[in-house]
Amino acid sequence: MVNKKSSPLRKEFAENIRKFRMRSGLTQEQLAGEAKLHRTYIGTVERGEQNISIDNIYKIAKALKIPAKELLTTS
Amino acid sequence: MVNKKSSPLRKEFAENIRKFRMRSGLTQEQLAGEAKLHRTYIGTVERGEQNISIDNIYKIAKALKIPAKELLTTS
Repeated sequence: MVNKKSSPLRKEFAENIRKFRMRSGLTQEQLAGEAKLHRTYIGTVERGEQNISIDNIYKIAKALKIPAKELLTTS
Repeated sequence: MVNKKSSPLRKEFAENIRKFRMRSGLTQEQLAGEAKLHRTYIGTVERGEQNISIDNIYKIAKALKIPAKELLTTS
């Protein structure tokens, strides 16, 4: 469950990760492998449950082959 | 000292924070006050020593009155 104190940015980020991952045709497991993160971690990120750090944002953006700022772009 | 394993994104973020803070004419202390973070924390962020979380990125962007993605834009 998403912490009530989590930022609106976290929610946008979560939605963007899922959007770009699906656009790339990657499963959560494949993205995790590319980013050298754990599959279950990617799942919690996509549900907005993680207060993800900038270094992990970088790993995911790199794995998705997009600039990190794209992941913080609000719709 | 910056951890050797820190991401290049962290360094860009650090430089951007300082740039936008100075452009706004804010001291680290004033930015900290606006963002409800500690002054010394802002200092460590600007030196790239913090693996800052997305919720704190949001607080700082809000305090600087800019979209969060601006802080992740590489020069």
